[in-house]
Amino acid sequence: MHFDHAGIATEDARELAALYGDLFGLEVAHEEEFDGMRVVFLETGDGYFELLEPLEDGTISRYLEDNGAGIHHLALATDDVEAALETARDHDVALIDDDPRPGAWGHSVAFLHPKDTGGILIELVEH
Amino acid sequence: MHFDHAGIATEDARELAALYGDLFGLEVAHEEEFDGMRVVFLETGDGYFELLEPLEDGTISRYLEDNGAGIHHLALATDDVEAALETARDHDVALIDDDPRPGAWGHSVAFLHPKDTGGILIELVEH
Repeated sequence: MHFDHAGIATEDARELAALYGDLFGLEVAHEEEFDGMRVVFLETGDGYFELLEPLEDGTISRYLEDNGAGIHHLALATDDVEAALETARDHDVALIDDDPRPGAWGHSVAFLHPKDTGGILIELVEH
Repeated sequence: MHFDHAGIATEDARELAALYGDLFGLEVAHEEEFDGMRVVFLETGDGYFELLEPLEDGTISRYLEDNGAGIHHLALATDDVEAALETARDHDVALIDDDPRPGAWGHSVAFLHPKDTGGILIELVEH
């Protein structure tokens, strides 16, 4: 697998995108509203920073309330999320998603529980 | 700039490297002791996961005490850290390092304060 993106929780995805454009030259690759969030993908070479701004109550709004803005998860790209989930199951890793589900940008995704992955919320993503 | 690595604070870098090898097929690119830490770089395509295990008291041991294991920072590669710091200064971003300093793996690095970068501790790194 390879790095796909870092998911970042923010109160204002467009403002953060503009700042990261100014500071680091990162450009917007894609923007959409998905699952009650504004999601802005910044190109970072072979991968992305995925800026997640809640538009209604949900996982990211609760994350912001509890932790403030910051890095929410890391995503690895695979060409087979189901097989990657099976490997995780074989290693007794707790799954947040038992099966792949639709993610932003038309991807297929599944999350692993951070308690079994070194404290990191890992997303598996298939483009 | 482009994504260079995600810095991950962990109690046991070798154990986490082995787990991420088993689960995600990530391979160790480099290991060293640096600044009171064991530092293991896992290849993630064009970038790395940098696993940071404290061997003595310091920034990462304090991070682990306060937060537990998890994602500590995101690093962007540049071919000129000094110019990137100057751009950050021009945008009134607080700097943790006023000048580049030696980082792991022989890199030149500088950190920006998360209060001015959307809650993300950003490292600028020059190979």
